[in-house]
Amino acid sequence: MKPRLPVDLAKCYRLLNHGPTVLVSSEHDGRRNVMAAAWSMPLDFSPPKVAVVIDRNTLTRQLVEGSGEFVLNVPSREMAGLTLAVGSVSGRESEKFDAQGIAVFAGEKVKAPLLEGCLGWLECRVISEPHIQHTYDLFLAEVVAAWADERAFRNGHWVFEEDAPRSIHYIAGGNFFETGEAFEAGK
Amino acid sequence: MKPRLPVDLAKCYRLLNHGPTVLVSSEHDGRRNVMAAAWSMPLDFSPPKVAVVIDRNTLTRQLVEGSGEFVLNVPSREMAGLTLAVGSVSGRESEKFDAQGIAVFAGEKVKAPLLEGCLGWLECRVISEPHIQHTYDLFLAEVVAAWADERAFRNGHWVFEEDAPRSIHYIAGGNFFETGEAFEAGK
Repeated sequence: MKPRLPVDLAKCYRLLNHGPTVLVSSEHDGRRNVMAAAWSMPLDFSPPKVAVVIDRNTLTRQLVEGSGEFVLNVPSREMAGLTLAVGSVSGRESEKFDAQGIAVFAGEKVKAPLLEGCLGWLECRVISEPHIQHTYDLFLAEVVAAWADERAFRNGHWVFEEDAPRSIHYIAGGNFFETGEAFEAGK
Repeated sequence: MKPRLPVDLAKCYRLLNHGPTVLVSSEHDGRRNVMAAAWSMPLDFSPPKVAVVIDRNTLTRQLVEGSGEFVLNVPSREMAGLTLAVGSVSGRESEKFDAQGIAVFAGEKVKAPLLEGCLGWLECRVISEPHIQHTYDLFLAEVVAAWADERAFRNGHWVFEEDAPRSIHYIAGGNFFETGEAFEAGK
């Protein structure tokens, strides 16, 4: 288990601001699941909100609609293979946590599991907007708790050291970009 | 002027899939503007749609609501300083194109200007959803034309060569991540 610290909710948008691919975990009525999502973003600072696309055909959709909750987990580069795997198989066909040997831990505010090995975690409660959920598969949610691996993100900031763990950005066809060098604009 | 090629609309989501920070350009009634947006994402493949947060206090908001159109421009690392600058000043105080010496060219389907030096361009028409526009500053749009600098993106794929131009990912406080190394999951 890696060290993780709570993230100030006023700064939690920074876990997503640079556009990493995330893993959406969910739990409802004794079932749990995790899927990959390249399509998520912050929506507001305070209270912090996020937007994420959750396809109507996924088990995740069923669990999120049932529970009104999910977690956005920010995977590390080491988890790219896992990210691809859980984005390629339906939770209806395979209990992905067991099949992939994914270790989890409990959040504070929601029941959905948090995945070990990630860099950051956003516990989210769905803001009910049935029209856009139904029409666009688009879910809005309030972030009610947030956590980060202190090797990657601490005191509200990403760690810029060369050997800090990196997040990932899905492209297509199994290809990702790693999050690259940090720099200050104009420098 | 750099070489740019049309992007197949079925592949245009890939310009945004990895979560780069974008510049939102707009034009209405003789006024034009450009602002930075870290909060945008693809929303659908076909027809391609995007989502972007446009604050209610911006001139961009006024121009986008007036025209029903905007362009998402994907800036290069070289444009990080400009991205920060156009994200820090209101278009009501400064005609940013003139003040920043920004060169533009015309799109094919919308009137909003396309910024020279970017890696990709998505011409967008707003899908009217007044409730979420008003409540969350969230705009959905259909992509009606797309373009890319062929040094960065061609034949529907990002160019993975070491010296290909890179996109950028805003963090906070003037800091960005560069888009890093491309890799195939599991390799």
